[in-house]
Amino acid sequence: MKLFSLSQMDERITLHSPTTLPKASGFLWNSQMMINMNCRGYAVAQFMQPEPAKYSHGPAIEATTFMQPEHPYYAHHPGRFFYIKTDKHCFSLPYEPMRAPLDSFAFTAGHNEVTWQIQQSGLLFDLVLSLVDDDCIEHWQLNVKNTTSTNIELSLYPYFSVGYKSWMNQSADFEEATSSIVARAITPYQKVDDYFKNQALKDITFLSAETAPDFWSCNQASFEGEGGLHNPDGVNQPNLTNDKSAYQTPAAVMQYQISLQANEQKSFKFLFGAVKSDEEIAQKRQHFEASKPDKNGQCQQRLTMHSQHSAFDHFINYWLPHQVSYHGESNRLTTDPQTRNYLQDALGCSYLDSLKTRQAIITALSQQHISGAMPDGILLHKDATLKYINQVPHTDHCVWLPLTLAAYLDETNDVSILSHQIPYQDSDELDSVKDHLDKAMCHLLDATDERGLSLIAQGDWCDPMNMVGYKGKGVSAWLTFATAYALKTWQYCYEHYVLTPLPTFFKEIAYLNAAANNYFWHNQWFGRGITDEGRLFGTDKDAQGSMFLNPQSWAFLSGALDKSKFAQITDLIDQHLNTPFGVQMLAPAYTEMVEDVGRVTQKFPGVAENGSVYNHATAFYIYSLYQAGLADKAYAALNTMIPNLEDASIRGQLPNFIPNYYRGDYAGNPDTAGVSSQLFNTGTVAWVYRIVIEELCGLKGQKGDLLIQPKLPSHWQFLQVKRYFQGAHFEVNYQRKAVQEIEVFVDSQSINGNIITTISPQNTYKVDVWLPK
Amino acid sequence: MKLFSLSQMDERITLHSPTTLPKASGFLWNSQMMINMNCRGYAVAQFMQPEPAKYSHGPAIEATTFMQPEHPYYAHHPGRFFYIKTDKHCFSLPYEPMRAPLDSFAFTAGHNEVTWQIQQSGLLFDLVLSLVDDDCIEHWQLNVKNTTSTNIELSLYPYFSVGYKSWMNQSADFEEATSSIVARAITPYQKVDDYFKNQALKDITFLSAETAPDFWSCNQASFEGEGGLHNPDGVNQPNLTNDKSAYQTPAAVMQYQISLQANEQKSFKFLFGAVKSDEEIAQKRQHFEASKPDKNGQCQQRLTMHSQHSAFDHFINYWLPHQVSYHGESNRLTTDPQTRNYLQDALGCSYLDSLKTRQAIITALSQQHISGAMPDGILLHKDATLKYINQVPHTDHCVWLPLTLAAYLDETNDVSILSHQIPYQDSDELDSVKDHLDKAMCHLLDATDERGLSLIAQGDWCDPMNMVGYKGKGVSAWLTFATAYALKTWQYCYEHYVLTPLPTFFKEIAYLNAAANNYFWHNQWFGRGITDEGRLFGTDKDAQGSMFLNPQSWAFLSGALDKSKFAQITDLIDQHLNTPFGVQMLAPAYTEMVEDVGRVTQKFPGVAENGSVYNHATAFYIYSLYQAGLADKAYAALNTMIPNLEDASIRGQLPNFIPNYYRGDYAGNPDTAGVSSQLFNTGTVAWVYRIVIEELCGLKGQKGDLLIQPKLPSHWQFLQVKRYFQGAHFEVNYQRKAVQEIEVFVDSQSINGNIITTISPQNTYKVDVWLPK
Repeated sequence: MKLFSLSQMDERITLHSPTTLPKASGFLWNSQMMINMNCRGYAVAQFMQPEPAKYSHGPAIEATTFMQPEHPYYAHHPGRFFYIKTDKHCFSLPYEPMRAPLDSFAFTAGHNEVTWQIQQSGLLFDLVLSLVDDDCIEHWQLNVKNTTSTNIELSLYPYFSVGYKSWMNQSADFEEATSSIVARAITPYQKVDDYFKNQALKDITFLSAETAPDFWSCNQASFEGEGGLHNPDGVNQPNLTNDKSAYQTPAAVMQYQISLQANEQKSFKFLFGAVKSDEEIAQKRQHFEASKPDKNGQCQQRLTMHSQHSAFDHFINYWLPHQVSYHGESNRLTTDPQTRNYLQDALGCSYLDSLKTRQAIITALSQQHISGAMPDGILLHKDATLKYINQVPHTDHCVWLPLTLAAYLDETNDVSILSHQIPYQDSDELDSVKDHLDKAMCHLLDATDERGLSLIAQGDWCDPMNMVGYKGKGVSAWLTFATAYALKTWQYCYEHYVLTPLPTFFKEIAYLNAAANNYFWHNQWFGRGITDEGRLFGTDKDAQGSMFLNPQSWAFLSGALDKSKFAQITDLIDQHLNTPFGVQMLAPAYTEMVEDVGRVTQKFPGVAENGSVYNHATAFYIYSLYQAGLADKAYAALNTMIPNLEDASIRGQLPNFIPNYYRGDYAGNPDTAGVSSQLFNTGTVAWVYRIVIEELCGLKGQKGDLLIQPKLPSHWQFLQVKRYFQGAHFEVNYQRKAVQEIEVFVDSQSINGNIITTISPQNTYKVDVWLPK
Repeated sequence: MKLFSLSQMDERITLHSPTTLPKASGFLWNSQMMINMNCRGYAVAQFMQPEPAKYSHGPAIEATTFMQPEHPYYAHHPGRFFYIKTDKHCFSLPYEPMRAPLDSFAFTAGHNEVTWQIQQSGLLFDLVLSLVDDDCIEHWQLNVKNTTSTNIELSLYPYFSVGYKSWMNQSADFEEATSSIVARAITPYQKVDDYFKNQALKDITFLSAETAPDFWSCNQASFEGEGGLHNPDGVNQPNLTNDKSAYQTPAAVMQYQISLQANEQKSFKFLFGAVKSDEEIAQKRQHFEASKPDKNGQCQQRLTMHSQHSAFDHFINYWLPHQVSYHGESNRLTTDPQTRNYLQDALGCSYLDSLKTRQAIITALSQQHISGAMPDGILLHKDATLKYINQVPHTDHCVWLPLTLAAYLDETNDVSILSHQIPYQDSDELDSVKDHLDKAMCHLLDATDERGLSLIAQGDWCDPMNMVGYKGKGVSAWLTFATAYALKTWQYCYEHYVLTPLPTFFKEIAYLNAAANNYFWHNQWFGRGITDEGRLFGTDKDAQGSMFLNPQSWAFLSGALDKSKFAQITDLIDQHLNTPFGVQMLAPAYTEMVEDVGRVTQKFPGVAENGSVYNHATAFYIYSLYQAGLADKAYAALNTMIPNLEDASIRGQLPNFIPNYYRGDYAGNPDTAGVSSQLFNTGTVAWVYRIVIEELCGLKGQKGDLLIQPKLPSHWQFLQVKRYFQGAHFEVNYQRKAVQEIEVFVDSQSINGNIITTISPQNTYKVDVWLPK
């Protein structure tokens, strides 16, 4: 049986079994919400009011937490199910909770829709989930067709989880006026102030049916009965008994008694989501009229490529920009994105919607302290506060400013941003973006010790590396290199966009790199840092965590390593960190607490920062490999990172997103190595998109010009790329030819060098590029 | 089929069906933990380290919350199950998760054990849960006997939920050395300080088997497979496959392959709980040797009664002191019990373990502010902080000091406590307990407005009545009466125990009562308060919340009402508040927010403070009825409160505890009226125990003497009571006789009056009491 298929025409990916990749899912979002819809019917949905909230809950009082990797499902996990009962069979769509065998199953993840086509008992079901624009509402459509030549009588029971909503007040009832199950609740609180704060909350979960059901139930326990969710009493009885929920766990269940003649089909539509009032439900029913897909899922295709690796192309063309857009538009469903994440997500937007990047840079800098320091999170709402990890001080946030700004300037040539005047978090004094950046760079330089090494405090890029320097002395090798690279990048911006006065960072960069080489180098590679007690760690003296990926990549980016030495280290990386599922962030994974390193060593071996294939770090590595001209190694790492159909059953996900990690600890936990975290929030995708555009395809902007400097893997014989840049369209055709060096033709005219200048917006440029064989 | 049975010999109550009262449960506790074990196999267990923690979790990341009423169960809820597979049948003990029919089922709740006896497929199972002393360990014993005349081969699979323990690190493996499944985790945290705080946490959940199993699994998902928890792949396969959990949801599952000849039986023992290290597991295995019941469950029987109502007697003799002890010993599993609860729980201890009461009074007073105010919660551990509702200021905490102290003095005659010197929370100045009480009384008097009415701020006894006075003006009728009653009680203490100087509270009490009569009386009863805007509420002008129970009861206790007027009000209470399941706290229940009353009006109608049969308020009412000499009405209310077998299927609980409420809103939600909250934390029990001892049985202490003043319901012809008081035993025999007034005989000698004086410890007094017919 065919397990997977990719559409050649569009972004669709189809899975043909509900059991092979039980956690396979699609994710949809709009400006208000996100739903991660699992192929078997379980769902994780969140909306913003302004903090993330849920309208469909589990049966216990769940903790409010940030999005976690490897989310577990269980029988009563929030889901969207349709029980089907004929006189012969009983089963459920899409698969949960009955898990009955189906004649055929096809789950299709798209950008704007998640769909299933299922056949069973002579019936053909087409089930479609899409989101309504700019609202917290799921739109469900179910077509059921009798594919036999005889009449079929069936009952259809949509079952939408509502779950435990509130210990103060929760109930549900069917409202005839809107053919809706309305589950009311009051978000629990105890302090008077919260009463007023909670006024704006959408506390109603509703399931509205286009066609009024014959029967219904709002009472989870009475519907389920002794039969269990997999075989509920409600379905085993002839009719649902129209039970309310009165401070009992609610569920939204309806029953339709349907008679289908041969080849007849019927269609049902449902809306499910959160509202504040009954009046709103009536208004929302207009969405039954138009079931157009949500525009938010349609991101601009600013780059399409056609290579000899069509599955790779498919991911790059359709899913990668989708995921980049998701980050830029959703801010990862938080009101206080970590500054590092916010800036890198904005970096990705440079290539899709650069106004977002501009605004993000300005928003972030307007929260900079006048000292130059960046806060740990950027507050996106007046009521937002720093939460979770943003309450722990990290030292790297300034690093990402010039990196994002440089990418933005290269892509847009919008030098006006540099003189844009903005205040500080703690001062109304207005300074230009350039001056803000200068302050940030000075702050990074100030945050070094007497040796010139960057202090790590309670963490740098690696959040849980929180005890290297918590006593105030520990230093980070990565951060020292990153500081030098940030300065180098800012200098690049000065040289190309500020122009005058010329920067004066050469000395500082050289000093940082020299100090780092002096103190962090051990034997054959760089350590990760020096602890408060003066211990260099991340070296071959350590039995665990003996090699870290990031310091090596960034030492090259910063200029602390030359190409040849870096090339040698990449061989050691292959030896110590590489696995069939990608490069581990560190190895061997820690199995016990190292008190002068910190929380990272307590995470489960091979998970997240403790030695997983942490794709964000891999993306930095790939970027540095391309900078070093190691195109084949870079492509190999890139290709391994991008999920594919060949090893999908190991990774456990479809190739519709890059997860934040694949399990590592290939040596210690081989059985789980390669398993996807299923978490699609990751700074990885901005870098991968940049890498593909600027490095692999080699179409990088600079001062409004387009540099043609492709870094194709040596086995690629051709590459066709369409790229939108500076308002113009470029159709680039790379071919291997018997040439000595790259030759570029624009509209069939050979040009001098590899830079396309004086670009006219709206123009379409046909570019032929000959590459040496 | 017989559904229930009560043991005549001891505290045991047996339920003969797993489906009639699906939430029926027993609860066990020791100094470290509490487990609420459901008849079908689900469990809620908590232990203190020092904050409440769990070693068996649900499958989602659950919120940390206070104990909630009407706890919902679901398939993957934490449980303790035993799957049984023979060549013919497959079922699970005690009932979940397979829910297969059983030939016979008996669930027995005892003080020290929860047991099941189950028959199925020719096998007889005896399953016993007890707790190990002073440790966080469940002791399980399963005897399985072949009751047939032929050999039976079976597999036994204990399945103990471990659940989602940590997003940082969770895993499980079988350790041969201790025949244990060891589920390790690291309590998640992000701040460095928490690393050090968490050092002491018991992060290991273990299941240790006396007899090594043949096979095992630690991996919830792989054990369950596609079959589901009700029909797991693990059980359907011949053998478990010894799967570890590596950052996957753990479970503790073992498999024993057993062959039983005719009439042969085998026994299995397991320990399940929390430890800090592997070494501890090895030590804990000593508990396999001794399976003696936990002493903590054995409370002293200081009162036993024998009336014509044996089920009532059973509850009073066995279960009521058990529940009173639980409160005193466990402090409701919190490190910051609400001051009101802490003092009333201590009041209950006066009759069982009065040293605890003494210590609690001293502990509470040592946290009094020098202003006289009591804090909202009493901190019982150096690291404890005020949490949840204790972060909201309440105005009644001082009220409970004289009430508890008076009961303690009456029971113990320990006048030494009055001169015991203790400091304040915010001052090292030492003052006597008497002086502390004086300060508390002055604080109550100070917290009144210009009319002499008690300010309510953000709540009084009724926690969620938080918006009557949050602007600083609103006053509470209940609190005004309670202040007067507290003064009256303190005056009683002065008169009987302090002696000199005589109190000067008469004027204040009269003033409070007059002011209350003046401002809170409306039409036929007292309102509940006057809001910040000057609105009297809780009167017949209100469509909802038109009558409240507490102001009426306490108006009589305070002396604001005379007996005859109170008697009239009790008729109105019957009319407006009474239901077949008890007296509602208010009626009609609110169905929408009243912004000048507050959060109580947002609770679901008939639930908790919003018009349930809130037993704590009913206990006050019963106490006031007895004070008014309305013995028949008092007994009727008391008898209705105590759960029984007759309407158990409506209430949904066994008669082994008084819940904090039964659902009210009998008018608006008749289907759920009477349903038990299942929550056994309640200030009710201290009062009910006091009421039974001092009022119903009429054996009240005073200055070391025993007052004989029974208030038997008029239909009771006799009552025999054994009462332990002042170290002596009293065997009291009440009989109706043709006498005009009570006559008392001690050791067959008639005494003058009804007071037994000069009591000799260790003595046993035979007391005969003749009561008028």
